[in-house]
Amino acid sequence: MYSDTVNKLISQFEKLPGIGHKTAVRLAFYILEAPADVANEMAKTLVDAKEKVKFCSICYNLTEKDPCDICSDKKRDDTTICVVENVKDVIAMEKTHEYKGLYHVLHGAISPMNNISAGDIKIKELLSRLSDDKIKEVILATNPTVEGEATAMYISRLIKPLGISVTRIAHGIPVGGDLEYTDEITLIKALEGRREM
Amino acid sequence: MYSDTVNKLISQFEKLPGIGHKTAVRLAFYILEAPADVANEMAKTLVDAKEKVKFCSICYNLTEKDPCDICSDKKRDDTTICVVENVKDVIAMEKTHEYKGLYHVLHGAISPMNNISAGDIKIKELLSRLSDDKIKEVILATNPTVEGEATAMYISRLIKPLGISVTRIAHGIPVGGDLEYTDEITLIKALEGRREM
Repeated sequence: MYSDTVNKLISQFEKLPGIGHKTAVRLAFYILEAPADVANEMAKTLVDAKEKVKFCSICYNLTEKDPCDICSDKKRDDTTICVVENVKDVIAMEKTHEYKGLYHVLHGAISPMNNISAGDIKIKELLSRLSDDKIKEVILATNPTVEGEATAMYISRLIKPLGISVTRIAHGIPVGGDLEYTDEITLIKALEGRREM
Repeated sequence: MYSDTVNKLISQFEKLPGIGHKTAVRLAFYILEAPADVANEMAKTLVDAKEKVKFCSICYNLTEKDPCDICSDKKRDDTTICVVENVKDVIAMEKTHEYKGLYHVLHGAISPMNNISAGDIKIKELLSRLSDDKIKEVILATNPTVEGEATAMYISRLIKPLGISVTRIAHGIPVGGDLEYTDEITLIKALEGRREM
């Protein structure tokens, strides 16, 4: 139905996460019908962003300078590392304005189903950061999913022998949540994690 | 929260139709975390498509050659023009394999609410196609919306004095539709358009 060039544009949009065929067609036609500036500016921004934004060589967060703002901030507590799966998790954590330590972004979680093993994520790089005696605590803030839990378990087994404290963020009923609508696993976790009032 | 470059990338995605802020952030981070090829290929495809795909100088459909395949197809009925709002409407029409005439893409509909007047869409270009005596019928297939109806009405008033037959596609209950759930306006249109069996 469409020409090769149009099909190629559609398939480029389809590669983006959460964009199905119909949306890809809609986006492609938007680009084709819009003035040439729109496509050119978008192309330029894509290449630009990719050139400027790199991974921090210490924590693997996205940054425009290396080391990143967080790693090079002397005011932050450099004895604690919070381990997260993705860059967006760092942003979520930073939004709390509560955590003042450093981060380590794994870029994924161990998932045999998706062919992602421990070697495919930044675990080796985390361990090398622990070689000096500065780090006192590693907080495992991977997601409370099967993959996230497995990853947390795997990392904790590697780190514990080093004599560093390893903690896991709490699971439970989210604030504003409803017991009635909470799934059983979360309720079990909430019970397990109960604390003296 | 994000750096300037990242914000710029996010706002580029936000410009796309139907992409909100959260989706734009998701897409931006996908690009930033993916290998550089992904961004570069996407940028190249955007510029490429925009360079290769132009509007047909006759019917204003998207095409890689001018005039487009439909306008230059000698087997098509060149006495009939089907007027549609958008390029995607041509594709929808072509999918029926029923219509064998030519098209004219208006690229919009008259909409005072959105500041789109008759001069902003390809009505002038349609009229100039009618100057030779070849065209016998103009089918107005703009959408059955307020804007589409107004546009059809406007065009029909311009064309009728030329002695060319002007028709409007039928409105009614879609095939497989349900009387019970059909809105009143559609039902009224369906009644008005009733035909002898």
